Amino acid sequence: MAQHTVEKTSVTLLGLGAMGTALARTWLAAGHPLTVWNRTPSRAAALAAEGAKAADSAAAAVTANTLVLVCLLDDASVDEALDGADLAGKDLVNLTTSTPAQARARAEWARERGARYLDGGIMAVPPMIGVPEAGGYVFYSGSRELFEQHQETLGTPAGTTYVGQDAGFAALYDVALLSAMYGMFAGAAHAYALIRKEDIDPTSLAPLLADWLAAMAPSVHQTAGQLRSGDYTKGVTSPLAMQVAGTQTLLSTADQQGVSPELLSPYFALMRRRLAKGTGEEDLTGVIDLLVH
Amino acid sequence: MAQHTVEKTSVTLLGLGAMGTALARTWLAAGHPLTVWNRTPSRAAALAAEGAKAADSAAAAVTANTLVLVCLLDDASVDEALDGADLAGKDLVNLTTSTPAQARARAEWARERGARYLDGGIMAVPPMIGVPEAGGYVFYSGSRELFEQHQETLGTPAGTTYVGQDAGFAALYDVALLSAMYGMFAGAAHAYALIRKEDIDPTSLAPLLADWLAAMAPSVHQTAGQLRSGDYTKGVTSPLAMQVAGTQTLLSTADQQGVSPELLSPYFALMRRRLAKGTGEEDLTGVIDLLVH
Ligand SMILES: NC(=O)c1ccc[n+]([C@@H]2O[C@H](COP(=O)([O-])OP(=O)(O)OC[C@H]3O[C@@H](n4cnc5c(N)ncnc54)[C@H](OP(=O)(O)O)[C@@H]3O)[C@@H](O)[C@H]2O)c1
Ligand SMILES: NC(=O)c1ccc[n+]([C@@H]2O[C@H](COP(=O)([O-])OP(=O)(O)OC[C@H]3O[C@@H](n4cnc5c(N)ncnc54)[C@H](OP(=O)(O)O)[C@@H]3O)[C@@H](O)[C@H]2O)c1
Repeated sequence: MAQHTVEKTSVTLLGLGAMGTALARTWLAAGHPLTVWNRTPSRAAALAAEGAKAADSAAAAVTANTLVLVCLLDDASVDEALDGADLAGKDLVNLTTSTPAQARARAEWARERGARYLDGGIMAVPPMIGVPEAGGYVFYSGSRELFEQHQETLGTPAGTTYVGQDAGFAALYDVALLSAMYGMFAGAAHAYALIRKEDIDPTSLAPLLADWLAAMAPSVHQTAGQLRSGDYTKGVTSPLAMQVAGTQTLLSTADQQGVSPELLSPYFALMRRRLAKGTGEEDLTGVIDLLVH
Repeated sequence: MAQHTVEKTSVTLLGLGAMGTALARTWLAAGHPLTVWNRTPSRAAALAAEGAKAADSAAAAVTANTLVLVCLLDDASVDEALDGADLAGKDLVNLTTSTPAQARARAEWARERGARYLDGGIMAVPPMIGVPEAGGYVFYSGSRELFEQHQETLGTPAGTTYVGQDAGFAALYDVALLSAMYGMFAGAAHAYALIRKEDIDPTSLAPLLADWLAAMAPSVHQTAGQLRSGDYTKGVTSPLAMQVAGTQTLLSTADQQGVSPELLSPYFALMRRRLAKGTGEEDLTGVIDLLVH
């Protein structure tokens, strides 16, 4: 069978930090013509040695291709880097971490300059980029047309998950997942603190902790169903009243082990506040109502 | 092939609440002669109708068999129920939730009364009891001889995990895992709160959240390795300094979405306190040091 050479989309990438460099290498490896720019030129020179074209300025890099990806430190650095670049007719994909409001403002800013806009939130660290087994992916939101047209190119460094036309949604999903992760890390920190003064090897607790957290993670499905229906008593196995009673054992144990309860007590306080509304038969879901004002 | 009838160990169970009743049914189903007692007799009568012997008093139930399991509300109810029972020569297995200190005191109390003692911490809710696929199990600690002699009987309702001769360890492992779980639940609550005012169905966030938390759970192995070695920089992919900078996006997003940061800010505060010690290249593990006093 004859081999067909499919022309790979040319890509411009602004920003060659740890993440940008990892992204760049995957497009080079996949045969995409790549133009790069970085504020500190030495990093672009290193990529040029691997086959990229190093542009002299961000504006020149933008001119080189229609598809322009940006992976800079923060929203302010995107302003600085793109100041003076001609974005008319460009497909701008911004992978710089931002808040939903920053992403929405950036989408409007791009529209005013005649560009289509897609915002991205990267759910991976650099070593996971270009390693599909690692399971990293990028949330995208904004122009659906841009996403669909370039999905293959965007999918080269990591998986792609499109979450809506609202340019702020990628950032919102990104932040939601990271927030949940820090909660889990806080809980794990408390768990390790509890065994600190005992003759227990932390690596013997680790597999029990990892399996337990992975087994409990799917409970977020039940929470979502309850939020959607507004019925927080559906499918409850451990009613709020019983769980509030049980927190006393957790707090007493922390006290016995010399561990500050500061990472758990705010959640327990919300459980009690919710219970005080007479919701003892509910799940823990009502706590969420108390967080939003 | 001829069927051999293996005599099943006779079991006494004190306490037929939601958990005790679930446990009782698995021993009956597996053919263990079972004697039960409950403070409110109607619950024991219900089990008698399913084949158990209902004892008139806790003391009589204890007399009936060598292996005595207890699953009552709390440590104080164990005192009340076993007051006056003759425990000499008994194998007492206490599945009542307690703190490590309560479990250690109970072990000593049992020893003084001539009983071997095993403490248990149940990592399951009643619907998971007798359902091996559900993955529930019980932490046991205390007399290794008792555990080994009765492991098969103890394994009938749920899996068994023996964690040491110190009678307090089952409770400690139990509390450690539950504490980590509440941290994860707190993080998930924050995540759902973030999307509350958006046109996003929580059940569309749920699978992303569940997969992400399950994917991040194994990071507790790296934490354990760092705690064991004392080197918190080993294998770091996201250094503390970068993560502290990133928390600003999480807090700004919470603010934009009208979500109280109270469930995450204590952890972020500890991250900053640790960073202030000049540990920007470390992982998040140093936070644990700040929790223990
Ligand atoms: N690394 C991760 O684990 C990870 C994970 C998910 C998302 N992200 C996001 O990916 C983005 C890049 O992260 P990174 O890890 O590559 O960061 P990094 O290694 O610190 O690199 C920062 C990049 O931004 C550039 N930059 C900073 N300020 C600038 C300015 N005022 N004008 C122009 N360029 C500027 C830097 O250029 P110089 O070389 O000249 O300093 C460098 O290219 C961030 O938004 C980050 O939140 C990173
Ligand atoms: N349910 C769960 O999801 C779960 C999960 C893990 C661990 N556990 C633990 O399992 C144990 C039992 O839980 P459960 O769900 O079965 O609780 P439950 O349904 O509330 O039942 C409590 C039991 O304790 C008895 N009791 C309470 N005070 C007593 C006293 N002063 N003297 C004698 N008996 C007394 C009750 O007797 P009456 O019938 O007379 O009230 C009943 O049998 C608890 O330690 C709990 O923490 C439960």
